[in-house]
Amino acid sequence: MTENRQWVLASHPTGMPDLANWRLETAPIPDPEDGEVLIRALYLSVDPYMRGRISPQKNYAAGVSVGEVMQGGGVGVVVKSRAAALQEGDFVESFGFGWRDYSVQPAPGLTKVDPTLGPLTAWLSYLGLPGLTAYFALLETGAVKAGDTVLVSAASGAVGQIVGQIAKLKGARAVAVASSDEKLTWCRSIGYDAGINYRTVPDLTEAVAEACPDGVDVFFDNTAGPIHDAAMKNLALFARIVICGTIALADRFEEPDIGERFIRAILVARAKMQGFLLFDHTDRFDAARAELAAWEKDGRLHHREDIAEGLEQTPAAFLKLLHSENFGKQLVRIAHDPTL
Amino acid sequence: MTENRQWVLASHPTGMPDLANWRLETAPIPDPEDGEVLIRALYLSVDPYMRGRISPQKNYAAGVSVGEVMQGGGVGVVVKSRAAALQEGDFVESFGFGWRDYSVQPAPGLTKVDPTLGPLTAWLSYLGLPGLTAYFALLETGAVKAGDTVLVSAASGAVGQIVGQIAKLKGARAVAVASSDEKLTWCRSIGYDAGINYRTVPDLTEAVAEACPDGVDVFFDNTAGPIHDAAMKNLALFARIVICGTIALADRFEEPDIGERFIRAILVARAKMQGFLLFDHTDRFDAARAELAAWEKDGRLHHREDIAEGLEQTPAAFLKLLHSENFGKQLVRIAHDPTL
Repeated sequence: MTENRQWVLASHPTGMPDLANWRLETAPIPDPEDGEVLIRALYLSVDPYMRGRISPQKNYAAGVSVGEVMQGGGVGVVVKSRAAALQEGDFVESFGFGWRDYSVQPAPGLTKVDPTLGPLTAWLSYLGLPGLTAYFALLETGAVKAGDTVLVSAASGAVGQIVGQIAKLKGARAVAVASSDEKLTWCRSIGYDAGINYRTVPDLTEAVAEACPDGVDVFFDNTAGPIHDAAMKNLALFARIVICGTIALADRFEEPDIGERFIRAILVARAKMQGFLLFDHTDRFDAARAELAAWEKDGRLHHREDIAEGLEQTPAAFLKLLHSENFGKQLVRIAHDPTL
Repeated sequence: MTENRQWVLASHPTGMPDLANWRLETAPIPDPEDGEVLIRALYLSVDPYMRGRISPQKNYAAGVSVGEVMQGGGVGVVVKSRAAALQEGDFVESFGFGWRDYSVQPAPGLTKVDPTLGPLTAWLSYLGLPGLTAYFALLETGAVKAGDTVLVSAASGAVGQIVGQIAKLKGARAVAVASSDEKLTWCRSIGYDAGINYRTVPDLTEAVAEACPDGVDVFFDNTAGPIHDAAMKNLALFARIVICGTIALADRFEEPDIGERFIRAILVARAKMQGFLLFDHTDRFDAARAELAAWEKDGRLHHREDIAEGLEQTPAAFLKLLHSENFGKQLVRIAHDPTL
């Protein structure tokens, strides 16, 4: 292959994105300069945060402009190195891959993958952004403790599946919210104590009340929207609400989010609502990965991936995620994984 | 006097209360039983939290039913004691006075007033609920630190006036929001760096942005409502929002609070919004009072009281508070203060 296939943003979506928002182009494979490496992508990750990057609205992450290569993380193999720390054949993970076959990236932004900790895909799931997010957001922002009831939205998703299992490891009760009975059955199989299908329950607030009879001690909010509202109406005293993702608001970036507000509920429960961003915790990623890997090797941490085949499927895989149609961490396989 | 005058709740208000919600009755002066004391009220305190107590809605404090004596705190003198810890002539403070001349209260619920720390009224202002609220809510929940910009609603009120001064003592910048230029002038005289008259500025969000050019690090929310919204649109990274009072929502207890929601703002700023209740901190009241008294004696903590004369003025004083017409901590003098 001498050409680099790449997905560029064709237009900013208004509302829910569709396939027409991207187009596949080709470009020459770039050359690394001093301090850089050329990487062949093996797996790309599609994640809810990317919805924010394609909105023209202000966000904490720099956005993608029309005509630019779509941003995204991945795992790949170094094919040419001009950086002392990395050699051809090394596996690396970063957020700088973009939706393309090959990328040139500066060595300091790359995490060298330690293949003894887990398979390559793990660096995009339980050892990567989703696993680390679950770890720090639940243990630190959520301050989970034994006896807590932990309610998790998008519970079978990349972050949610790890949250529920860490909650159980810490002696808490874990309640899953997901979009299908099949996902909830799997959530129970990995340790969740109860489940709520938000698409079929007649009243979400009552369903949360039934599943959490002593109230919600930790609400791990991956979505915002109606699940958030139902949780806020069922807070236990000193509840912690971890705002981790707001995907349910994603197609309303352009307008204010008008709805029921829970300022009095926060006061009455002396609850704490806090926004979480993984990159505030980079200095402790290695320690967290070591603990997550140990749990997985002990058989105490299960995970599930949903792998699409081929770069050309990347936008479709991302849309599947936005429509809650994925089951487990959504990845795209870009090239043959040489470790398999 | 052989009769006890007392204000009872005549009806639950719908919307803003008015004088017709209470009626003055008389009853015999009660006798203390073992472990109780009879107290002559000297000053009663009227506070925003009382609005919640007269709503039929669920709240963290037990409500007042129609026909019951209106609840409220005060300072008084023991006139008959059947408790070993207290003698006739001792001054005491508690939340159990009610709007009446005499009350019988169990000794364990009473705080014995140390007259060397400050005047009797201080136990209802900077050494009492408002001062202690400012102290713990700003220092612990708000985690104020040098260099922070602290935005305070109801800044000339009982809590707000202390918040601004503690913020300054800790090296922060303090910005007042109040309902009149006269109040703001006074706020500046006690140390506030800037002020916003929320009744006259054309755009509250822009006014907050101008007064807090680096964003709001700590928003001390005494009111909820439009000031809350303006603050939420101006959060600095890692902002802390202390939910201390929601008086602006007080006449909407019966209906949900519908409005703009700031879940994404909380996520983007990694902000923390937390409800505060003073009674979670009772074990450290003495230490906090000692520090507040020392600041006041050093001339570093100023305070202002607004004292209505006579028990018959109590409902009117409370309504004045609800309409932001008081200037400083609103008290009612019930009988002659023997320490003056």
